Amino acid sequence: MSYSDALSKALEALGASEGAKLSVTRDGRTFVGTLMPHHEFSAPDILILKMKSGYNVGVRITDSASIEVLEKPAERVRKEAEVEYREGLPKLVLIGTGGTIASYVDYRTGAVHPALSTSDMVNAVPEIRDIANIDARVLFSIFSENMGVEHWQELAEAVAQEINNGADGVIIPHGTDTMGYTAAALSFMLRGITKPVVLVGAQRSSDRPSSDASSNLVACARFCTQGNRAGVFVVMHDTLGDDSFAVHVGTRVRKMHTSRRDAFRSINALPAAHIDKDGKIVFSGAGVPVSDGQAKAIIGMERSCVLLQYFPGMEPSVFEDIFMRSRGVVIAGSGLGHVNEGMIPLIRKATDRGTVVVLTSQCLNGRTNLNVYNTGRDMLAAGAVTVLDMLPETAYVKLMWALANTSSPEEARMLMKTPIAGEMSDRRTADERRL
Amino acid sequence: MSYSDALSKALEALGASEGAKLSVTRDGRTFVGTLMPHHEFSAPDILILKMKSGYNVGVRITDSASIEVLEKPAERVRKEAEVEYREGLPKLVLIGTGGTIASYVDYRTGAVHPALSTSDMVNAVPEIRDIANIDARVLFSIFSENMGVEHWQELAEAVAQEINNGADGVIIPHGTDTMGYTAAALSFMLRGITKPVVLVGAQRSSDRPSSDASSNLVACARFCTQGNRAGVFVVMHDTLGDDSFAVHVGTRVRKMHTSRRDAFRSINALPAAHIDKDGKIVFSGAGVPVSDGQAKAIIGMERSCVLLQYFPGMEPSVFEDIFMRSRGVVIAGSGLGHVNEGMIPLIRKATDRGTVVVLTSQCLNGRTNLNVYNTGRDMLAAGAVTVLDMLPETAYVKLMWALANTSSPEEARMLMKTPIAGEMSDRRTADERRL
Repeated sequence: MSYSDALSKALEALGASEGAKLSVTRDGRTFVGTLMPHHEFSAPDILILKMKSGYNVGVRITDSASIEVLEKPAERVRKEAEVEYREGLPKLVLIGTGGTIASYVDYRTGAVHPALSTSDMVNAVPEIRDIANIDARVLFSIFSENMGVEHWQELAEAVAQEINNGADGVIIPHGTDTMGYTAAALSFMLRGITKPVVLVGAQRSSDRPSSDASSNLVACARFCTQGNRAGVFVVMHDTLGDDSFAVHVGTRVRKMHTSRRDAFRSINALPAAHIDKDGKIVFSGAGVPVSDGQAKAIIGMERSCVLLQYFPGMEPSVFEDIFMRSRGVVIAGSGLGHVNEGMIPLIRKATDRGTVVVLTSQCLNGRTNLNVYNTGRDMLAAGAVTVLDMLPETAYVKLMWALANTSSPEEARMLMKTPIAGEMSDRRTADERRL
Repeated sequence: MSYSDALSKALEALGASEGAKLSVTRDGRTFVGTLMPHHEFSAPDILILKMKSGYNVGVRITDSASIEVLEKPAERVRKEAEVEYREGLPKLVLIGTGGTIASYVDYRTGAVHPALSTSDMVNAVPEIRDIANIDARVLFSIFSENMGVEHWQELAEAVAQEINNGADGVIIPHGTDTMGYTAAALSFMLRGITKPVVLVGAQRSSDRPSSDASSNLVACARFCTQGNRAGVFVVMHDTLGDDSFAVHVGTRVRKMHTSRRDAFRSINALPAAHIDKDGKIVFSGAGVPVSDGQAKAIIGMERSCVLLQYFPGMEPSVFEDIFMRSRGVVIAGSGLGHVNEGMIPLIRKATDRGTVVVLTSQCLNGRTNLNVYNTGRDMLAAGAVTVLDMLPETAYVKLMWALANTSSPEEARMLMKTPIAGEMSDRRTADERRL
């Protein structure tokens, strides 16, 4: 749907194009804001204004309404920079996928676009050129809620290719929504990788003063060049300030806040390292040092898998079809990994037809253990597989990978119980961190 | 299935009944542990031993195996206590539901039983008799993973009845697995309650030295008698020690660790109060003071609701049946509350047939906001309802209640967006707590 003819003409006559700052008065109320693009679901007589608060408001333009143009739209300026190759610096490759880190708020409209090119991103952080020679390519330009299994596969192959072409590390700017899932997927697909592969995001787009895009990118580049750690990681702010960055193991990280800059947390494990604002890296334990060796992406993924959360009132009849048609089901159970007794026969029925049913905990923190209570023992007897302290999301990703890269459900089940990418641990560490 | 005849006879001859401490040697390996009850899914020639570590091991008894009885089973001693009524003390009613707080580890077998009576529980904490006169009744004796909607309903009615019969407060010992869900359900069903209704659990059973059962119960009784706060709350350890207890608002609390004593955390809100080990109560804000007035339980619940988590690779075709047959669907979306673009038509299709689709965030912390990105705006246009910073689990419980107690999906949708029991907030508080 677009504007009505009358409103289109009125806007044109006023020079009120998208991005203009308008003052709209109607029925005695005045709204001041930036004119947003007309939305396909909006009625033809509604103007959408982005207010100073950041919120949008829709104003219906009646005959009595008046519109005044306070400011014409500004032009978006794009910088192009000459890139010089510096001898002696390591080579990092940025593979762009989209997301807030690669987005900009259009100055004209206030809308967020996932369209910043990877070289734009690098040019916005000139100091990164002192750390490494950066090659940049855009693989996708999507918001991460639209990342799917096929994107993980394409990305893993691109990473392997870049490393085999001589990259000392790969940085993957990524939307934060599903960055944890992608990190887990790459961790399994690129198991044994000999160089750092680091996903990085931003909670605030790069042209906002509070953006974490540049500082996260710089921390990421430092870790890749000075960390001497191979593997798949996520680098994000560790605190609300710009003074500390955490390097999370790709299978252990989860977005734990919708908007804070320190949203990413390692669960059931310490971050592999912390980096301060001066680039000092402090490691939490031993890791795999960087080495030479070909990278290989094992990208097979069984698509017929689901991730579910147990809840009181969960009816086996409602979920039976999903259990029976899926090759893999991961349930975030309650507490130590429980479901109610009504669901147990469904676990057994699905297991009997070859579905692998994996139990994790919706508590997120702590280890599953189905040996403590009768419910758990009955679940184990029905075929449920537990995976120690693995995150539900990581278990879902691993199950897709395990089912595609083994030859029977029994093998997949065994693989689920075997730590292969830092994703689970049997250690009962004295964890006294504040939850 | 039971033991084979031969094994039954051998155990009997040895006096090796359940709870006996055995040493079993087979193929050169020796297992020492307490004989557990034979499990219906175990093979007839397997003995289950609970080891010192707390884990069970199954040992197949072959011809070459030898069994030695190290200790005969001990007798479980049950205490009975005379209860005297004390003038001038408030009256609290304990309504037992089961769970670890009401369970004991059978000394004979090491198995956990949900069978401790409510008066046993009170007798185990004599100091509680100095705080209040305690009446106790057992409503259920189940592990909380088996609590269902019908249990919430029965419990809400029992609470209202006790308050109308003169209780100054009601304490509900409850299994921790689903205590958050029950607390949310009671919060909506008993909206406007004039007395404190407090759920309390334990992460360690009451006969373990590290049990938190007694200290949580005492904190609970103190809050009920000295807090002057009406409403539904959860009281649990706030720290790993026995020195601080948190009083959580019933709609804001979530079990965030499988086993730690401080597993329960308030999400997107401060706890209503903290209680120290001497009983000093510090409040975080104003609340509703205790008053007189009849209690009324509004217990209608629409059972045809589900709670789902969005994940990359979620296929609309796999979930279509659930969306179309349910009257309510709550999705824990990614980030600000997103799903991928492929799921949006399903939201629209379900909304069009009258299903209410509510979006929350799997980040748990922070607020949903579907106005920031195109994906979110498309979801809103398709009919998705957002609920600020409400927990997914609370939204699921509220949706069941909203659908049953309104007369149209549109009314239910409006009710979901209206805070009625402290379950959501539009305030953007400066939240700087460590995640």
